Amino acid sequence: MAESDVAKVIRLEHAILEKNAQFATWNRGYFRGRDIVAVNFLSSPGAGKTALLERLARDHATELRLAVIEADLATDRDAERIRAAGAPVIQVNTGAVCHLDAHMLGHALESLDPKTGSLLAIENVGNLVCPAMFDLGERARVVVFSVTEGEDKPIKYPHMFARADVVILNKMDLAPHVDFDEAAARGFLEKVAPRARILAASARTGMGVAELAAYLGSLREEPKRAS
Amino acid sequence: MAESDVAKVIRLEHAILEKNAQFATWNRGYFRGRDIVAVNFLSSPGAGKTALLERLARDHATELRLAVIEADLATDRDAERIRAAGAPVIQVNTGAVCHLDAHMLGHALESLDPKTGSLLAIENVGNLVCPAMFDLGERARVVVFSVTEGEDKPIKYPHMFARADVVILNKMDLAPHVDFDEAAARGFLEKVAPRARILAASARTGMGVAELAAYLGSLREEPKRAS
Repeated sequence: MAESDVAKVIRLEHAILEKNAQFATWNRGYFRGRDIVAVNFLSSPGAGKTALLERLARDHATELRLAVIEADLATDRDAERIRAAGAPVIQVNTGAVCHLDAHMLGHALESLDPKTGSLLAIENVGNLVCPAMFDLGERARVVVFSVTEGEDKPIKYPHMFARADVVILNKMDLAPHVDFDEAAARGFLEKVAPRARILAASARTGMGVAELAAYLGSLREEPKRAS
Repeated sequence: MAESDVAKVIRLEHAILEKNAQFATWNRGYFRGRDIVAVNFLSSPGAGKTALLERLARDHATELRLAVIEADLATDRDAERIRAAGAPVIQVNTGAVCHLDAHMLGHALESLDPKTGSLLAIENVGNLVCPAMFDLGERARVVVFSVTEGEDKPIKYPHMFARADVVILNKMDLAPHVDFDEAAARGFLEKVAPRARILAASARTGMGVAELAAYLGSLREEPKRAS
């Protein structure tokens, strides 16, 4: 690409992110207005976000006042799973778009109409690159990282992990079958996400799910900021 | 986003893909000039592309005349693994860019300087969305799909799977631990990628690696097109 094209792309990316920031601000206002805590769940495809949210819905939906927004390029399979597990949910299909943006989320909020005081879990498109850039107005980001993906993902996808408040080492039941080196994974996380809280979990065995629920519940107690 | 912004984004995306198509044409000329067969390997992060290429390099590098280009946002860990397994390799770091484009690949070709008659394996950035759009001038696309990701990934990421010549059901050694329903996965593939060849594989046990090598070798025998 010629230099002028690169400049054009960068200018447009800035414009898109600035516009996204405005919609994220609207979302933050909406969340404050309804006393909602919103959490953005991010990962590779198939890292287990939906299975964790299913467990949360099944075991903690009432205590957390859980509501869920599911994003996928196509299908409403994930929303069906969450609905069956007992939480209010809406599916957003992004088509060919590789991430959820704050504007799409705003529309989903109007359709879902979540109750005052909800804990809103937003499951982003499975992608460790693009969704990192898009602020949705969320209170916290949870990055789910399956042990089957290999220990080095944090340093290979640093933009995503650097923005995580919590990193879930997921599918821990499979760790022995893939010789997962937990110390190495934690070492890589220490490099790119030194302030992130790390939780080991497995939706299959239930490991870590109560801790995740407790963490999500604790976000309500944090001082709210108007910004 | 206002309608005019959407139109602007679409116009720019078209311009980017058109420019990419020009560079892909250059790459095709280069491959023809050196009698190289290029294959684009795509998958989620951590689906096992590098481990499969390591096995290919270790067991079939000489017979295939294998050379490798590794793409990652950051680190040169994958190139180190391939080099240790015995194939010529170069690492491309894409920074914050979520895919390899044909222009980046052209530069990598000049640096790697692959031998005439090589089988060039190009490992794309781990991402099931964006790289689907970018033609690199390759002869074939191999999409690697780990059984740990869940059976429904083909219908959730249809753009990627619809463009696959081969789909590898990878990490088959883990299938019993995740109750992988192979018939269901094949049914979803039949919907979105009816013409793709399906190979079951495991870099850990070596399952399917010889078949993959035979398939890659067979690409040399296909009639070459000037286009």
